[in-house]
Amino acid sequence: MSLSTIGGLIMAWGCLIGAVLLDGGEMRAFVALSPAVLVFGGTFGAVMTGMTVEGIKSIPSRFAFVFMQKKIDLNATIATLCEMAVRSRRDGILTLEDDIEKITDPFMKKGFQMCVDGVDTDKLAEVMESEYATLKEGYKEGEEFFKQLGGFSPTLGIIGTVLGLIHMLANLENAESMGPAIAMAFIATMYGVSVANLVYLPLANKSKTLAQQELLLKRIIIQALIGIQSGVSPRLLEQSLQCYVHQHERKESEKVAKKA
Amino acid sequence: MSLSTIGGLIMAWGCLIGAVLLDGGEMRAFVALSPAVLVFGGTFGAVMTGMTVEGIKSIPSRFAFVFMQKKIDLNATIATLCEMAVRSRRDGILTLEDDIEKITDPFMKKGFQMCVDGVDTDKLAEVMESEYATLKEGYKEGEEFFKQLGGFSPTLGIIGTVLGLIHMLANLENAESMGPAIAMAFIATMYGVSVANLVYLPLANKSKTLAQQELLLKRIIIQALIGIQSGVSPRLLEQSLQCYVHQHERKESEKVAKKA
Amino acid sequence: MSLSTIGGLIMAWGCLIGAVLLDGGEMRAFVALSPAVLVFGGTFGAVMTGMTVEGIKSIPSRFAFVFMQKKIDLNATIATLCEMAVRSRRDGILTLEDDIEKITDPFMKKGFQMCVDGVDTDKLAEVMESEYATLKEGYKEGEEFFKQLGGFSPTLGIIGTVLGLIHMLANLENAESMGPAIAMAFIATMYGVSVANLVYLPLANKSKTLAQQELLLKRIIIQALIGIQSGVSPRLLEQSLQCYVHQHERKESEKVAKKA
Amino acid sequence: MSLSTIGGLIMAWGCLIGAVLLDGGEMRAFVALSPAVLVFGGTFGAVMTGMTVEGIKSIPSRFAFVFMQKKIDLNATIATLCEMAVRSRRDGILTLEDDIEKITDPFMKKGFQMCVDGVDTDKLAEVMESEYATLKEGYKEGEEFFKQLGGFSPTLGIIGTVLGLIHMLANLENAESMGPAIAMAFIATMYGVSVANLVYLPLANKSKTLAQQELLLKRIIIQALIGIQSGVSPRLLEQSLQCYVHQHERKESEKVAKKA
Amino acid sequence: MSLSTIGGLIMAWGCLIGAVLLDGGEMRAFVALSPAVLVFGGTFGAVMTGMTVEGIKSIPSRFAFVFMQKKIDLNATIATLCEMAVRSRRDGILTLEDDIEKITDPFMKKGFQMCVDGVDTDKLAEVMESEYATLKEGYKEGEEFFKQLGGFSPTLGIIGTVLGLIHMLANLENAESMGPAIAMAFIATMYGVSVANLVYLPLANKSKTLAQQELLLKRIIIQALIGIQSGVSPRLLEQSLQCYVHQHERKESEKVAKKA
Repeated sequence: MSLSTIGGLIMAWGCLIGAVLLDGGEMRAFVALSPAVLVFGGTFGAVMTGMTVEGIKSIPSRFAFVFMQKKIDLNATIATLCEMAVRSRRDGILTLEDDIEKITDPFMKKGFQMCVDGVDTDKLAEVMESEYATLKEGYKEGEEFFKQLGGFSPTLGIIGTVLGLIHMLANLENAESMGPAIAMAFIATMYGVSVANLVYLPLANKSKTLAQQELLLKRIIIQALIGIQSGVSPRLLEQSLQCYVHQHERKESEKVAKKA
Repeated sequence: MSLSTIGGLIMAWGCLIGAVLLDGGEMRAFVALSPAVLVFGGTFGAVMTGMTVEGIKSIPSRFAFVFMQKKIDLNATIATLCEMAVRSRRDGILTLEDDIEKITDPFMKKGFQMCVDGVDTDKLAEVMESEYATLKEGYKEGEEFFKQLGGFSPTLGIIGTVLGLIHMLANLENAESMGPAIAMAFIATMYGVSVANLVYLPLANKSKTLAQQELLLKRIIIQALIGIQSGVSPRLLEQSLQCYVHQHERKESEKVAKKA
Repeated sequence: MSLSTIGGLIMAWGCLIGAVLLDGGEMRAFVALSPAVLVFGGTFGAVMTGMTVEGIKSIPSRFAFVFMQKKIDLNATIATLCEMAVRSRRDGILTLEDDIEKITDPFMKKGFQMCVDGVDTDKLAEVMESEYATLKEGYKEGEEFFKQLGGFSPTLGIIGTVLGLIHMLANLENAESMGPAIAMAFIATMYGVSVANLVYLPLANKSKTLAQQELLLKRIIIQALIGIQSGVSPRLLEQSLQCYVHQHERKESEKVAKKA
Repeated sequence: MSLSTIGGLIMAWGCLIGAVLLDGGEMRAFVALSPAVLVFGGTFGAVMTGMTVEGIKSIPSRFAFVFMQKKIDLNATIATLCEMAVRSRRDGILTLEDDIEKITDPFMKKGFQMCVDGVDTDKLAEVMESEYATLKEGYKEGEEFFKQLGGFSPTLGIIGTVLGLIHMLANLENAESMGPAIAMAFIATMYGVSVANLVYLPLANKSKTLAQQELLLKRIIIQALIGIQSGVSPRLLEQSLQCYVHQHERKESEKVAKKA
Repeated sequence: MSLSTIGGLIMAWGCLIGAVLLDGGEMRAFVALSPAVLVFGGTFGAVMTGMTVEGIKSIPSRFAFVFMQKKIDLNATIATLCEMAVRSRRDGILTLEDDIEKITDPFMKKGFQMCVDGVDTDKLAEVMESEYATLKEGYKEGEEFFKQLGGFSPTLGIIGTVLGLIHMLANLENAESMGPAIAMAFIATMYGVSVANLVYLPLANKSKTLAQQELLLKRIIIQALIGIQSGVSPRLLEQSLQCYVHQHERKESEKVAKKA
């Protein structure tokens, strides 16, 4: 469960509702069915049009990805990989075979399986880079999905407002009904802009942030695989893997290392 | 026939019409000839100006591409290619000659024809990469076509609205006719923004999505051709080709493989 | 003469004028001197400021380029080049000397002259790539010129409208004159947006499209020059040159080849 | 303490307040609680949603980075590095070991430690390039943080204004209260646009400028490390390191050199 | 003195003033102190915030660069370089030593000094490429400076207008004063948009154009230095240097060559 995603959304919407209540407004005044149908339905329709059937089926997993953030501990992964490097160097690469069963990440599993199978280093690097590129592509599609939602949503809000204004202007009967009619028309804009800026676009950013973390982990794994197979010294391997971790996060890793 | 394209468009326009009806409006109020002439005709004119005569002739095929989506089954293609790799390794590459007749994709056909003709691997890769680049260029032109429609359409809507407002303001006779005249002026904006966001831009996205799929297939074919010609082991070839398929879609392929 | 440029412009402006007439408006109401001075003069001034004196002198040739489109026949050029490859291989590269006189394209001429002069392949490729890069830069400047016109034009329209509104608001005498004064102010916006979207930006697109065609032709020539000098078989050369042509246009070329 | 950051902010906000006072306005009229809650709280919420918990914790250091600018003296660093190159060439690379203790920059320290440890040049370059890439990524995240604040802030201002207008229009009682209500609604837009353009986006630019300086320093260090380890002549090393300094700043460095 | 910069600015502002006078307006009506303070001061403050103290000191030289355009004659430079190549080939590279004193461009001077000093070609190329990259970075900063001015200026205009409208709406006393107050508020928008589009952004374009010219010259010098040091034939050198000049400008160079 991603604390920052949930917390950020609560803060953003809390501030919006708080601002309305502080002004003496009632939330009820901002609830309307027809703008909701247009903005939410229209946006999903527009985004769906650009996707394949498989893409549409993967929408729930896009939301799960940003809300159910996996815990990624780069330092722990580096420690595990370096330990495997030590063992591989001392007892031979085949002794890693037992560890492969325990690996849950399919990317890392495939890599070590190929190592143990004796695939040569160039081919190993090539295959793992292809896997990396495919993963990256998949993450980019996820970010793109939320970005498209965030892009179409405000324009559908504007369409709703223009429709409402045309409807009102074409049926001017008395000046008194004008105010509420314009208010109604603006609700569509409010829905479109709010949901884009307080849900879709922040989730697109989250999707990008999480993907960068995952890809960094994969990059470290590729680097380690190549190092292990070419028999680099574990100490040098650790030095080169730690380069991928930000300096201030790395310090803690060194403390951990000292305890070990 | 592309279900998601049709379905998405129906959903988007259904929501727009539904929202109007929910508000007690009539669709008739939003139908007008002059904004339609300006927005649709003007947009096509502006886009045509930037194209060559050949480009204009290919417009129907651009629409066909996004609506008549070909079924692409990466796993099946990989299976076919691996099977050919097995045969080529066992019986020699010339035994693939009979298969070439059956291949319908001209890209794949040209590649295997060159393999059988004994063109060397570097030249083969170079030619197929050129073919790939030309295909990619063609797909990009298609996406660009829809993006340009989506870019000019809202500005033509704004031109229509400004024209309408100038016309109204220059002929102010009675305040009563102002409302319907402004309503009329806004119809152009509504047309321009709606069609851009609920037709053109979603189709541009669809065009991009389908092109990515097609190009991924071509990428797999190039990889397989080079592998087959250089005599890579079929098992390693399968491993490296499957890297191009997303992990969750790949699992199904493995089930298929077990059945086989 | 470019049919699609002229046709597109006629269609776009025809629709604009048609829409005005359909609405019962008169074109006269949209003609005014001061917004025209501001929008057209101001836009040219803003673009000129960013150019060198040589760049300003080349403006007429920028317009000539988009309206006087040269006919480019990739298939015919490929046929000519392959024929020269056949002759060069049979009778020696020096026999091409007579053909050089007949070549009108200075790019192709320079290339074949260097071939005949016996410049080695690496140097030939390097020089022709430099020529290509300079040509590309020149085309990009042309596209950039129209894009800048299209970028400054709407903002100058807005400046005109704001100037008009300030003038009107500061001199409010009677409410009756307000309508025509606002109408007058909006004419500047209309000029700026219309000319940008129905002239400048479409011409920028056209400039880009034509440049891509020309550069594709140059790319084919470079490929052929290198092939001819290194003595590649004409059949393989044709195969690799045809990769640059879109598949559906290529078929016609093969018909031509059969007639020959 | 960064003089230009503080000075720029004072100048920008001084001009804004000065303009209000010159117009006879009172700052009190522009202070309101509910738009502040919506714009500042909502913007932070939206940005937080896209970050990880670690990212949120590093927000104070993002602000510290732009306000507490470190003094970077490229010429002094180059002088130090060249002096080390002289010593390393004369007395052997191991004599640099004592200097390492005095180095405060962890990037430079790690590099020289690896030099002294006898890591070979290729590996040294690879590790330092990874460190550089990680640092660059970290700086980019900092810039991105301020850019996102600057991107969400104006849209939240617009949401506030639309909310205010809907509230006002739905409760039209008397025309007299309309003016102040619209004024109130516009305060949200003013907050959003002002803070974005006079705080967040300038800080994003500052963050980028400072990061470029830091990265240039790191680039010089990498270049020097490789030069020292491969035993380049100190004079040539100085010539190649000075290339990274702008010409007009370099002259002063030469004066310094003469004094030394 | 750059004729096209001065001429373009005169044309743009002449058209703006001309349009106002044609409409019967007075320039006096558009002059106001408080919007000027906000727009000009605020924009400079916002840009300053993002710069270092050194960057702020270099602002005058940024303006000097775009107004005091150096005359660049590519053909003359190529002629000089080829002449030096002839001499170097005939009498040895050391005979160039006397010419170095006469070279005013520090970039070219450093290059030839290194040639004469006998630095090897790879190192020479590496150092000159670093110098080129630093120059390019400096020019990009100059362009960026004007672009930032052009980016902040319109938003500060909008802030001024929103401030003015809030001030007016909060103090509605009589309807008569509304017109001039709104007019006053719009003056800020007019200042912000005009100065951005008729000064800052055109100067950004100019800065880019001039930088491209300077960098092209530097590119030619690098190419010539490498050619001279590796002893390329002067005729081939001229052919490869002329590739960097646009074809229609190159013809004149050949006339010059014939005279020589």
